[in-house]
Amino acid sequence: MSLLLAITGWHVESWRERFSALLPDLPIVTLGEPFDRRAVHYVASWKHPEGSLAGLPNLAAIFSLGAGVDHLFTDSRLPHAPIARVIDPDLTTRMSEYVVMHCLMQLRQQRRYERQQREKSWDDDRHQPAAREVRVGVMGLGELGQDAARKLQVIGFDVAGWSRSPKVIEGLATFSGEDGLAAFLARTDILVVLLPHTPETEGILNRPLLARLARDGRLGGPVLINAGRGKLQVETDILAALDAGELREAVLDVFETEPLPQDSRLWTHPAVTVTPHNSAMSAPEAVADQIAAQIRRLEAGGELQNVVDPSRGY
Amino acid sequence: MSLLLAITGWHVESWRERFSALLPDLPIVTLGEPFDRRAVHYVASWKHPEGSLAGLPNLAAIFSLGAGVDHLFTDSRLPHAPIARVIDPDLTTRMSEYVVMHCLMQLRQQRRYERQQREKSWDDDRHQPAAREVRVGVMGLGELGQDAARKLQVIGFDVAGWSRSPKVIEGLATFSGEDGLAAFLARTDILVVLLPHTPETEGILNRPLLARLARDGRLGGPVLINAGRGKLQVETDILAALDAGELREAVLDVFETEPLPQDSRLWTHPAVTVTPHNSAMSAPEAVADQIAAQIRRLEAGGELQNVVDPSRGY
Repeated sequence: MSLLLAITGWHVESWRERFSALLPDLPIVTLGEPFDRRAVHYVASWKHPEGSLAGLPNLAAIFSLGAGVDHLFTDSRLPHAPIARVIDPDLTTRMSEYVVMHCLMQLRQQRRYERQQREKSWDDDRHQPAAREVRVGVMGLGELGQDAARKLQVIGFDVAGWSRSPKVIEGLATFSGEDGLAAFLARTDILVVLLPHTPETEGILNRPLLARLARDGRLGGPVLINAGRGKLQVETDILAALDAGELREAVLDVFETEPLPQDSRLWTHPAVTVTPHNSAMSAPEAVADQIAAQIRRLEAGGELQNVVDPSRGY
Repeated sequence: MSLLLAITGWHVESWRERFSALLPDLPIVTLGEPFDRRAVHYVASWKHPEGSLAGLPNLAAIFSLGAGVDHLFTDSRLPHAPIARVIDPDLTTRMSEYVVMHCLMQLRQQRRYERQQREKSWDDDRHQPAAREVRVGVMGLGELGQDAARKLQVIGFDVAGWSRSPKVIEGLATFSGEDGLAAFLARTDILVVLLPHTPETEGILNRPLLARLARDGRLGGPVLINAGRGKLQVETDILAALDAGELREAVLDVFETEPLPQDSRLWTHPAVTVTPHNSAMSAPEAVADQIAAQIRRLEAGGELQNVVDPSRGY
């Protein structure tokens, strides 16, 4: 019996060390070495290569090493085994840290003041709007979206939310569905996107949508912050909207292809902030702890927890 | 009867336009032009030159154009007339915007990710602590400090406060006086300074104080954020502490001399963020509205409001 670490892009040896320390009796194998496929009872995956998990006849569970599980569903040859997600209690607060910070950096014109410092320029004359004068729209009102919306309200922003199906959230103006989208976008200066990636949301951040954002706001143009999923966005459309002045700035933590390719114009566009999909990274120690506890539970005859419903995709 | 605009460093003509629109019948004069000193009933000042208000025999009130009034008390030849402060309802929320943003930028290593973007580097491997693992200490627990502390707590930081005299604030660990200072500093990773400038606080941010900050924190060294007053800090000490590695970063909105002199090393030090005393700027329109309303009230026989107690200095 073994645990297969099926990882690309992350540092496999540090994960091996973590799991070895937590599960000293369980052999740990990786995709980059020969191993007995029949012995693999557990897989811990982060963006494993398509098909690399096929032919594991004794698989009991697949664990995602990150909060998202959409990377698993892109593999058409994924074995039929239950998938368990990681529930990281810090994940929500981390995402809200990122969202609040980037909304504040837009409000307070942080890029302008960094430029001024480089130029040794003491120019305090341009007035900044107050948070209450800036309208943030949060797309996606799951746990992440609701927490971000609440914290943005505490800071003072004028916040509303949008979700596919109607939601009633105390103290928050909400819009829903295709019908509510136009009114939601028309009152939004900063669009914060925390939607999951599903067939319905793929490519939703396209130029027609961006063109419907508020034009009369206090920031001098609308701002997009996408900390959801890269597949939500059409990057050529975002660049075109920025170049056309329809969008003032874009803050992107996620991309159509990750890592972001070296030749992407997003890296160097003056109105784009790129972060390496770290808006809400789980602490590796917490993730490993949780997966090790799940394996011990299964070995003791218990049931797998936090199982994903494949029909919903999350 | 006239209103004297006694301003240095700010744009006098935009203030003249604002007051002319609000008080069309009141002549408005400035320091840069000849005027009848006996006709001056009101002064609106921001850092007027020392002695420039002497010899105004019919002065009824002095208004500060900013939230602070300490700039008035540095003038030993200030006429004996009541001083009224501006109460800006946005001032507190603006200050908290600044404090929360800069604490988050430290927590989330925003400078590192900006550098990575310039280098087109997708390095997501270094783990970031969660807000709850970072201890913020707020010095000064007036209205500004309490609001900042509360909002930092909502974001998730581990917050405590210090004030000269003991204060009990629900849900906040507080320290006070010289006795409480050592324990407060020893548990502080990010020191947020919102103290007023008084004889007791002048130069308080010196190297011995900075040396008492926590060395074992999750940020790799202590951080200073001073959005209070420039006279609190000893800038040569801050630079020495940064160069010696005793301080990891400094975010300074205020300076011993403002505007910050061109030859200050603070402008170019890689671990220093300089902002031009804009952490909590009052909206000029709101300030002018409030002063115009005070003048109309006095002219109608009413009483001056928001009068400063000169013995306390604030």
